[in-house]
Amino acid sequence: SETFKVAVLPGDGIGPEVMAEALKVLDAIEKKYDVQFERRHANVGGAGIDLEGKALPQTTIDICKAADAILFGSVGGPKWESLPPDEQPERGALLPLRKIFGLFCNLRPAIIFPALTGSSTLKESVIEGGFNLLVVRELTGGIYFAEPKGIETVDGVRRGFDTMLYTEPEIERITRVAFDIARKRASKVCSIDKANVLSTSVLWRQVVERVAKEYPDVALSHMYVDNAAMQLVRWPKQFDVLLCGNMFGDIISDEAAMLTGSLGMLPSASLAEGSFGMYEPSGGSAPDIAGQGIANPIAQILSASMMLRYSFGMQQAADAVDAAVEKVLDQGYRTGDIYQGTSGETRVNTVEMGDAIVAAL
Amino acid sequence: SETFKVAVLPGDGIGPEVMAEALKVLDAIEKKYDVQFERRHANVGGAGIDLEGKALPQTTIDICKAADAILFGSVGGPKWESLPPDEQPERGALLPLRKIFGLFCNLRPAIIFPALTGSSTLKESVIEGGFNLLVVRELTGGIYFAEPKGIETVDGVRRGFDTMLYTEPEIERITRVAFDIARKRASKVCSIDKANVLSTSVLWRQVVERVAKEYPDVALSHMYVDNAAMQLVRWPKQFDVLLCGNMFGDIISDEAAMLTGSLGMLPSASLAEGSFGMYEPSGGSAPDIAGQGIANPIAQILSASMMLRYSFGMQQAADAVDAAVEKVLDQGYRTGDIYQGTSGETRVNTVEMGDAIVAAL
Ligand SMILES: CC(C)[C@H](C(=O)O)[C@@H](O)C(=O)O
Ligand SMILES: CC(C)[C@H](C(=O)O)[C@@H](O)C(=O)O
Repeated sequence: SETFKVAVLPGDGIGPEVMAEALKVLDAIEKKYDVQFERRHANVGGAGIDLEGKALPQTTIDICKAADAILFGSVGGPKWESLPPDEQPERGALLPLRKIFGLFCNLRPAIIFPALTGSSTLKESVIEGGFNLLVVRELTGGIYFAEPKGIETVDGVRRGFDTMLYTEPEIERITRVAFDIARKRASKVCSIDKANVLSTSVLWRQVVERVAKEYPDVALSHMYVDNAAMQLVRWPKQFDVLLCGNMFGDIISDEAAMLTGSLGMLPSASLAEGSFGMYEPSGGSAPDIAGQGIANPIAQILSASMMLRYSFGMQQAADAVDAAVEKVLDQGYRTGDIYQGTSGETRVNTVEMGDAIVAAL
Repeated sequence: SETFKVAVLPGDGIGPEVMAEALKVLDAIEKKYDVQFERRHANVGGAGIDLEGKALPQTTIDICKAADAILFGSVGGPKWESLPPDEQPERGALLPLRKIFGLFCNLRPAIIFPALTGSSTLKESVIEGGFNLLVVRELTGGIYFAEPKGIETVDGVRRGFDTMLYTEPEIERITRVAFDIARKRASKVCSIDKANVLSTSVLWRQVVERVAKEYPDVALSHMYVDNAAMQLVRWPKQFDVLLCGNMFGDIISDEAAMLTGSLGMLPSASLAEGSFGMYEPSGGSAPDIAGQGIANPIAQILSASMMLRYSFGMQQAADAVDAAVEKVLDQGYRTGDIYQGTSGETRVNTVEMGDAIVAAL
């Protein structure tokens, strides 16, 4: 039987609670398929700070290096909010992880499950039947990492500065991912930029157009980021794959996720070249409901499913997990965040939702 | 009687049609108050390109320089879309105008008129009773104008780059505007940044906090731009004034505007130090409906009202225009873009809407 090594980083807030359910799902996959998941737990985020003095301790890095993939919970909370930004759980853990492991490609699906259109703040007429879009965000370049950046004093005046930079190979690499994925979906890529203002975007657009020629079966369009922020609100169904640089992808993917109304449902993947990847829920650590056993574990479970699919090549198992999630939703199981109080719904807690999904497997 | 000089730049698409209605409103104001508006028309955008070879011809600059304020229509259209970005109507006219006239402060209200909640894509329960927020966007700094920016080849690899930069005085100046305005509203400022990633934002946050100490009566909060993009969708009523740098303000103000569902209703102001300003609708030139006489002139008319208020110090006249607009909406007058087909509505064209507003004055 095959063995995959998983670094398990539950993190803070609801992280450990929802992670427990994802691990139960991995147990079920082990029983069902001929596979073993060798798991090593490590501290990250606030837990890393409290127990080992850093949001991303060296032991955690080592455990991740020895693994085939990272299953990440969520990090952050009021306790660590007064630390300098660099040392805070989110930034202090996520940015170094992305850089160290070369996680250049961030996949952020924004899906409304037809059964849950009620949780969106958008009108029923706008989202009828649900929508399904995918933000492909470049994750190791752009204004996040380029130098110089800092704060300095020139002629007695303080100034803050950052550099936005993309090289042609960086743009090409993420563009290929977007087009390859679009082929397996609705075959539409909308590339988001600000080419009327940014030189980085002018190059971005040129490279995307060149690469697109190799994919004549995929329809390419371009949209300025300000317009994209509007169009998402106006008619989200117009999109299939949205291809973005690091900063625009950060904003656009969060907006798209919130439009679904069910952040607790959305997984994400951050992929390196090859098969290594990190998988985490799109939502945060939700400190307000942590420890109560009521958080929605579905985003964490779907993150595990993305891990099966993208790092372990287990499409069938991943499909099975996705189908199990859809089944329990169709059966009416709802954690508090997606409970609407209509007939046919059964309100469940974190563990019960996990159990239902395992049973549906 | 007092005289104000207005540079009138109708531009492209629906620009000239809606501008005609705003000028009728200025006529009415002249009759009602002891004031003269000396108007000089000039070409801008596609009209500038077609007639004088540039999106912002020198004659237009000169006319604007001789004026007390610029009343701007809208620019752009498919005809000029294949030009290089620098020469296109929007970018080629707007960015130089902002720079030449030092229009550092962009005010973009996003208002749902209670009578029009139906046009928003947001659920009635989210926007019940309407909402009213104001984006205060810095307009002459940040990543839009800072150098270096360009495309170069280093060791055979092409790269595009831009510089994001804010000095302390730039941040301080726009922050004061936001707080001064907040005092006349709900006394809340939410400053938008990405201080967990950008050094520019770290300085931004420090300066905003320092200036805020002078406004103990105004409540200050900070929000990361990705979270702001989500929170706008989730619960727009939580906001009063949103204070943003140039790039984040571009994205956030457009998202907020679209949430109202009535882009054709929203004016904007771009202010210099002193009383000079440029006033324009938030929406675009809508080439699809240009020439048909059906465009909504309200954004242009409310832009003229902002001109009265901010450049000419005519609060009373501005209030009268705003009230007239609200009155005709309450009376049920609707151009096609805001017509919902319910009883009590009267569908009108551009000229009829302008006439109704003049009559209500
Ligand atoms: C925590 C922060 C640095 C991070 C980002 O901006 O990338 C987060 O917002 C995300 O999107 O994963
Ligand atoms: C046309 C473009 C350069 C401009 C901007 O980005 O500022 C526009 O989007 C706006 O918001 O006025």
